[in-house]
Amino acid sequence: MKSLSNIADILYSRDYFYILTHKYPDGDTLGSAYALCRALQNSGKKAKVLYSDEMPNKYDFMLDYVVHEEFTPQCIISVDIADTKQLGDSLVKYSDNVDICIDHHITNKSYAEITFVNAAASSTAEIIYFFIKEMNVKIDKEMAECIYVGISTDTGCFKYSNVTAQTHRIVADLIELGMSLNKINKSLFDTKSKALLKLQGMLFSSIEYFFGNRCAMIFLTNDIIETAQVEEQDLEGIASIPRCIDGVEIGITLREKEKDVWKVSVRTTEDVSAVGICEKFNGGGHLCAAGFTIEGDMSTVKSRILLCLKDRLKR
Amino acid sequence: MKSLSNIADILYSRDYFYILTHKYPDGDTLGSAYALCRALQNSGKKAKVLYSDEMPNKYDFMLDYVVHEEFTPQCIISVDIADTKQLGDSLVKYSDNVDICIDHHITNKSYAEITFVNAAASSTAEIIYFFIKEMNVKIDKEMAECIYVGISTDTGCFKYSNVTAQTHRIVADLIELGMSLNKINKSLFDTKSKALLKLQGMLFSSIEYFFGNRCAMIFLTNDIIETAQVEEQDLEGIASIPRCIDGVEIGITLREKEKDVWKVSVRTTEDVSAVGICEKFNGGGHLCAAGFTIEGDMSTVKSRILLCLKDRLKR
Repeated sequence: MKSLSNIADILYSRDYFYILTHKYPDGDTLGSAYALCRALQNSGKKAKVLYSDEMPNKYDFMLDYVVHEEFTPQCIISVDIADTKQLGDSLVKYSDNVDICIDHHITNKSYAEITFVNAAASSTAEIIYFFIKEMNVKIDKEMAECIYVGISTDTGCFKYSNVTAQTHRIVADLIELGMSLNKINKSLFDTKSKALLKLQGMLFSSIEYFFGNRCAMIFLTNDIIETAQVEEQDLEGIASIPRCIDGVEIGITLREKEKDVWKVSVRTTEDVSAVGICEKFNGGGHLCAAGFTIEGDMSTVKSRILLCLKDRLKR
Repeated sequence: MKSLSNIADILYSRDYFYILTHKYPDGDTLGSAYALCRALQNSGKKAKVLYSDEMPNKYDFMLDYVVHEEFTPQCIISVDIADTKQLGDSLVKYSDNVDICIDHHITNKSYAEITFVNAAASSTAEIIYFFIKEMNVKIDKEMAECIYVGISTDTGCFKYSNVTAQTHRIVADLIELGMSLNKINKSLFDTKSKALLKLQGMLFSSIEYFFGNRCAMIFLTNDIIETAQVEEQDLEGIASIPRCIDGVEIGITLREKEKDVWKVSVRTTEDVSAVGICEKFNGGGHLCAAGFTIEGDMSTVKSRILLCLKDRLKR
C-alpha cells in the first residue's frame, strides 16, 4: 500500500481534481471531501466535490468553504467509498477511473488505481487530517470544521466503539484551530426536525415487545412516514432505536418498501448473532447489525420473524 | 485561592475523608467523588462518598471501585457543589463543616474553609483529573472511568459549549489508561428505559407549536408520568427537547407539580431572553435557560404564557 506521503507527492504533480463522495452522502464522506477540496484549492489547484444524491441541509455550510468552478479533471479521488456500488447513479460512470481512494472501511474493494485504507481510523476524515498535513497545507479553521463534521458524525459524537485516544487528540487540535465547535454541534446533534419528532412520537408509542422484553420491534410503515412528512435523511439512525432499550437483546425495525415488501434491520447485543438471524431469511451483515428483505403482510412477516427468534433466544 | 498543589498537601496530612456529592446526584458529582475516593484509598487513606438521594442505576458500577467502610472523618470535601443548598436533606448537617470544596461553577458561594473553583473546566471531573496528578497518585483504569463519567455527562457527550481542547486531550489520556470506553458510552448514552421511550412517545405526539413554529410547548402532566411509569431520573433532559426543534426560538416545558401548580422551564436561542420571560412570572435563571412556578389550570396557564411571549416575539 502506498503511504499518505506517496499519495501527497502524486497530488502535487496534478492540477485538476474531482473528489467523489458516496451515495446518500453522510458527514464523513462530505466532511472529508470538502476538507480535501479546500486543501487542494489553498495550494493553488482546481478541485470540485461531486455527489449523486442531495446533501442534507445541515452540511450546507461547507459549500461556502470552497470555490465552485467547472473544469476537466486530471485526477479523480474517492473518499469514504468502499465499493463502486456506493457511487450512486450520477457518479457510477467514474467507476473504472478512480485514481486514488482514501477510506477507513476494512471491506474496501480496492477498485482504485491507488488505495489507502486505515480501518483503525474512526472515520475517513481522521485520515484526511493526517493527509492534509502530509500535503504540507496549513489546516485552517474551515478545514478543521469539515474534518470535525466527518469525525463527529461517524462516531455518533464520540459515542461509538470506533473512537480512540487519537480521535480525541485530533479533535483537540481542531478546536485549537479556532473552529466553531458550538455552532456545528448544535446543528449536527442538537437539532431535530418537527417531522422527525412527530415520527419518533408515533414509533415510540407503538413499539412492540416480545419474549419478556428481550426483543423490541418497530414498524416504519408508509402510512407513518407520510403522516409525519419526514424526509429520507430523517430516517437515518431509526434502526438503532429498538436495540437501545434497556434489556433488549434483539431490536428489529421493519421498513415498508412497497405493499407487502419489508426491509428488515436487525440489531443485537453481542450475545445474539444478527447475521445468523438474517441468513435464515437470505440476508446478511455483521455480528450485531444485519438485514434482509421479506415479502408478506405485516402480521405474517412478524410471525415468521418471531418464530425464528424464539429458537435463537432459547439457546 | 489555594492551588491544587496546596490542597493536595493538606490532604496528605489527613487520613479520614468524607466526600460529599450534591442532591439528585449526576455523573459529574458522582464521577468526581468516586475518582477522588479511590485515589485517596489507593494512597492509604480511608475515604467514603456520601449522597442524599438515590444514585441512578447507570452509575452503580463505580460502587465496585472503592472499599466501603465506616469511620469518623477528619476532613470533609465537597465536589461539584456550588452552594450548601445543593447538599440535600441528609447531608445538610455538614453545611458549616466543609473543609475543601472543588467545583467548576462560577456561582460557587465559597462556603468551604478552602475553595478551588475553575469555571473554565468543562466539569468538576476535569479538575479532579489534575488534582489526582497533584496528589502524586497513579490514575488507574477505574479512576479513569469515573473521571470519564463526569466529563462525558457534564458535556452531553462532548456536545455542549463547555467543551475545550483540554477536555478532549484529557479523554485521550483516559482512554490510553485502558478504560472500558464502550461499556460506559453504551450504558450512559445509548440505553433508554422502556418507560422513557413510552414517555417520549406521548410527549413528542402532543407537542404544541405557536407563532409559526417559533415556540414549542410540552406538557409533562402527572397523568403522562403515571401512564409511562417513568422515574424521576428519566425526566432529566426533558426540558431541553422543545428548543431542539428546528426553527424553534422558545421551548417551554410545563411540569405538573400538583393540581393546578406548574413548574415551567424556558429554553431559548440567544435571540430571546429566557430570564426576561421568567422574571415576568417572578422566576429567574440565565439568558437561554430559566424557569418559574405558576398556578392555574392548564389552559389558563398556557394563555398567560403565550400572551407574554407574543410581546417578546414581536420585537
